[in-house]
Amino acid sequence: MTYSTMKPKEVRQLIREKKITTFTSGLCNGYAQANLAILPKELAFDFLLFTQRNPKPCPVLDVTEIGCPEPKLAAPGADIRYDIPKYRIYRYGEMTDEVTDLSTYWRDDLVAFLLGCSFSFEGPMLDAGLEVRHITENHNVPMYITNIPCTPAGVFSGPMVVSMRPMKPKDAIRATQVTSRMPSVHGAPIHIGNPTDIGIKDISKPDFGDPSTIYPGEIPVFWACGVTPQAVAMSVKPEFMITHAPGHMFITDLLNADLSVL
Amino acid sequence: MTYSTMKPKEVRQLIREKKITTFTSGLCNGYAQANLAILPKELAFDFLLFTQRNPKPCPVLDVTEIGCPEPKLAAPGADIRYDIPKYRIYRYGEMTDEVTDLSTYWRDDLVAFLLGCSFSFEGPMLDAGLEVRHITENHNVPMYITNIPCTPAGVFSGPMVVSMRPMKPKDAIRATQVTSRMPSVHGAPIHIGNPTDIGIKDISKPDFGDPSTIYPGEIPVFWACGVTPQAVAMSVKPEFMITHAPGHMFITDLLNADLSVL
Repeated sequence: MTYSTMKPKEVRQLIREKKITTFTSGLCNGYAQANLAILPKELAFDFLLFTQRNPKPCPVLDVTEIGCPEPKLAAPGADIRYDIPKYRIYRYGEMTDEVTDLSTYWRDDLVAFLLGCSFSFEGPMLDAGLEVRHITENHNVPMYITNIPCTPAGVFSGPMVVSMRPMKPKDAIRATQVTSRMPSVHGAPIHIGNPTDIGIKDISKPDFGDPSTIYPGEIPVFWACGVTPQAVAMSVKPEFMITHAPGHMFITDLLNADLSVL
Repeated sequence: MTYSTMKPKEVRQLIREKKITTFTSGLCNGYAQANLAILPKELAFDFLLFTQRNPKPCPVLDVTEIGCPEPKLAAPGADIRYDIPKYRIYRYGEMTDEVTDLSTYWRDDLVAFLLGCSFSFEGPMLDAGLEVRHITENHNVPMYITNIPCTPAGVFSGPMVVSMRPMKPKDAIRATQVTSRMPSVHGAPIHIGNPTDIGIKDISKPDFGDPSTIYPGEIPVFWACGVTPQAVAMSVKPEFMITHAPGHMFITDLLNADLSVL
């Protein structure tokens, strides 16, 4: 499909016109896609501080000005209210609606956070010849709630969520090198090896996503996961919160390659 | 002097007791020292957003909770009001006082930002066998206001300030590698070569600090400078602002080595 080679601006326009309403995986190859979390301004400082204190699970790509729907840094000219195929509306931590634009829900006191996602981070792994198991097996990445506490900030606190990719030790070393280049999109692994060291009781039962096969001679490699900030934000049951619907991401103008420091 | 090998906590205690009242350069070798900017909470979100959008000139090491004087992440147990040898008080952009503690100036609506400084960043250069000219010549690093705009955030905007170190081309390449490892403390250079490309008219006349000798066969190498966020904050003439006095830094518990991603 040609959407894979189109520019983000063109694809966002099609999304805005509701001509693309699907998952965004595979669209605009090479460009960073982002998770969305929108919160009222009263919580925005604490949440921004939480991301600053926990950069590995919370890779911020852009934060909008209060009430402004344009992510000026990650996608100048875009409108966060219309350029994602599907949104979820939460009140006091409960999902109350699922919508295709935010025309009826946007408020002047909202701040939108765009948070990096694992697509940015798995491209360079594949480019380096590493197998990414859940891509091979065509299922969602397995994610686990750990016993590693995030550094709290204001009202926000909670455990780190990690994603897991099984690898041969030699590949785990190479993956550490490759992902170390991308400190602004999760960076190096958080843990390699024994899942119980970080509070994971059963590696075959992820808390989110689907289990990946771990072959003999492989070890699980764990990275901080971008689900963490949404989970932490949700846990305080904010009066109002908006997220993207799973798999329906915001496509930025940022090249994945530009998120690498080396 | 033994202060160089003491732990940060011990030296901060001596500063708190006003037994150390001098420049902090050379104290607690290996530990990161930080610039201080304290602003009222009304400006804190915009300022934090400014640092997030401009990570190269604004390497945030810690941000305190509103009204809380403890930098819990960078130095648990420390008190930002007493643990720096000298502070400057500004009202509407004018310096109105210089004090050795903040007992009379602290307010419940203040947020303190600790921003990384070039000490963290020059250690690894020296360790890599690179000459750092202003250290050799025993003067302050030359700094220049450029024509590179920072990404604005709320009320904050302004040009990037850079520091300059002259190097042979081969050393400039090595310095690029070494500093790329430290994206959270300025990272790779912003520019190499012709000063006028970034709006610097006379390399022999820095806007801050002292000029460094540039020998034949050397090129100037420019890094984003931690003076940028203070200069930008000051330019909006906030009702109230506190900074450290030049050279009188906050000594954190963070190892410089821990600020490296590789």
